[in-house]
Amino acid sequence: MKLNSQQLCDLAVGAAFLGTGGGGDPYVGRLMVQQCLDEGLEVNIIDPSELADDMLVIPTAMMGAPTVLVEKIPSGEEAMFSLQRLERHLRRKAQATMPIEIGGINSTIPLVVGARLGLPIVDGDGMGRAFPFLEMETFGVYGVSGSPMAVSDEYGDCAIIEAVDNRQMEWLSRAVAIRMGGCAYIAEYAMSGADVKRTAIPNTLSLAIRIGEVLRNAKTSHENPIEALLGFLPSTLYRYGRIIFGGKIIDVMRETKAGFSIGRVTIGGLPPFGSTMEIEIQNENLIARVDGQVKAIVPDLICIMNTETAEPITSENLRYGQRVTVLAVSVPEIMRTPEALDVFGPACFGLKEPFISIEEIG
Amino acid sequence: MKLNSQQLCDLAVGAAFLGTGGGGDPYVGRLMVQQCLDEGLEVNIIDPSELADDMLVIPTAMMGAPTVLVEKIPSGEEAMFSLQRLERHLRRKAQATMPIEIGGINSTIPLVVGARLGLPIVDGDGMGRAFPFLEMETFGVYGVSGSPMAVSDEYGDCAIIEAVDNRQMEWLSRAVAIRMGGCAYIAEYAMSGADVKRTAIPNTLSLAIRIGEVLRNAKTSHENPIEALLGFLPSTLYRYGRIIFGGKIIDVMRETKAGFSIGRVTIGGLPPFGSTMEIEIQNENLIARVDGQVKAIVPDLICIMNTETAEPITSENLRYGQRVTVLAVSVPEIMRTPEALDVFGPACFGLKEPFISIEEIG
Repeated sequence: MKLNSQQLCDLAVGAAFLGTGGGGDPYVGRLMVQQCLDEGLEVNIIDPSELADDMLVIPTAMMGAPTVLVEKIPSGEEAMFSLQRLERHLRRKAQATMPIEIGGINSTIPLVVGARLGLPIVDGDGMGRAFPFLEMETFGVYGVSGSPMAVSDEYGDCAIIEAVDNRQMEWLSRAVAIRMGGCAYIAEYAMSGADVKRTAIPNTLSLAIRIGEVLRNAKTSHENPIEALLGFLPSTLYRYGRIIFGGKIIDVMRETKAGFSIGRVTIGGLPPFGSTMEIEIQNENLIARVDGQVKAIVPDLICIMNTETAEPITSENLRYGQRVTVLAVSVPEIMRTPEALDVFGPACFGLKEPFISIEEIG
Repeated sequence: MKLNSQQLCDLAVGAAFLGTGGGGDPYVGRLMVQQCLDEGLEVNIIDPSELADDMLVIPTAMMGAPTVLVEKIPSGEEAMFSLQRLERHLRRKAQATMPIEIGGINSTIPLVVGARLGLPIVDGDGMGRAFPFLEMETFGVYGVSGSPMAVSDEYGDCAIIEAVDNRQMEWLSRAVAIRMGGCAYIAEYAMSGADVKRTAIPNTLSLAIRIGEVLRNAKTSHENPIEALLGFLPSTLYRYGRIIFGGKIIDVMRETKAGFSIGRVTIGGLPPFGSTMEIEIQNENLIARVDGQVKAIVPDLICIMNTETAEPITSENLRYGQRVTVLAVSVPEIMRTPEALDVFGPACFGLKEPFISIEEIG
């Protein structure tokens, strides 16, 4: 599939939705990809099934604070540079790139890399949403090493991290990214086509595009976009979604701690919803409770949407008084296995509640 | 020269002297080298002139807090591991290793690497003393790039840093070393034999051994060790030294700030020295003043020695009440050029005073 400008806009909306509050606003990323399209470059998205088993795929991304990225706009060549450094280290050329994270801005970075290097971009990712740490990847859950990993800045500095495990890779590369100014560009989880097919969450790029499209079409045909979206989900790997709350934001508590946006948003229920919902945030929305009762919990998606416009609201854009609808969406089964929950389940974020799927919560 | 145990003990004393208060106590390093000797391994120290111009030399060292190293004793293989990772990155085998810093514990790390890998150790280094930052190398002053550089820990984690300049290399690798537990092992400034001959301070390993030997011999023959040392210096590249103060420590102010040991020691003069001397410390002794008048300043050496035992006292071992003799020693000319002072002159440590050699101070 050759991406066009309309699909790019849809992707930005869908990626913001899948970010479940985190992942950063894809706005800057969208501009970077649009620039490529304006130059006549092709953004060629391929299905994982098109990969030969022995092809080398090198995913690309940014790491660090999206708030920094907005002040320090990338040229678009930084992640490309990381990929090339990693190629040199591996002594092998990449035959494709792909996202490590579909939620937020990282859905767009590999599109720029692919367009500029003439590489196809695999339709899939390793998070199926947004997560704050690099080890939180289905790639790693199912045995792919994140190392060696390249971290680059806009000046040409680069660090190749070879860590004993993916957690240690996150730990060491985070320090480098911080010293690179709080935002750096990475290439990691270099793997074979066979490993992509085995470990990636497939078709999340086209899913994000479709989500944006469904919301847009509903708006132009005066349907309820959120209902349209919920009607669309059963045809995807994210089989199931429902509205878990609706109301008005009555409190936002948010602070930046250790490089994360940590906080809690409180929503006063409007009919038919009573009482109040509290959502805990660590970059992403982690857990939603009504009167202490869990309504959805990570890794299932908790998406706060503007009730009027049906636009996904990222954590940093939550404001007192906003009327919001909260959706919970089930994630693909590959993200709910015991191995997966060991890496990005509730306990990995310090939550005491065990994972319980939104289907079970009922 | 094949190092023996006696020379190793002498080296530890001489390296502590050349550390000018910093560089860490070579005690742990001495034990690591002694272990190699006990295993029958050879520590083969060669003169820079023995290097062919096209040989590859990879210097090795530890970086971080020597206080951490004492609690987290290395196996001796960590720096070897860095050298091997850098070899792999460069796709070339090292034909020798060498110290980057002769002062303190880094005089011994390459001896362990050389012994374990069967590589000769070049008699020379890039600091001619101890300095707190990795860019403070005559190698870099005269055009050798510190990058690519390998930083490793004891678990097998490694980062290859490719920075745009040596300062940025220090900045990025320091963050990695901190996350590796505050102490890591490095291989950097990989260079040709020709570059070693052009940029290194030659024969500082044998100088350190000779300093230890001179002090030891003077003690056994009941001469004044400090006088013996001052008599020996004119036959070396460190042409000149003198006693600039003698007295009793009346105050030690020291704090750990941003990973450095920062402070000031005040010495009350004993006859024939009047008044008091103040020495400012940033790991190493940077500047010595009497009544505000500069008596010696970085990069010239300021060595605080125990007046009774003639043992060099490292910054962390300074105590109220110690009777000390302060020596100033001129550094080789290669360390006093304008290019060198740009990298490790007084201004690089935030001092306002310009460099003035101890010969000029008179």
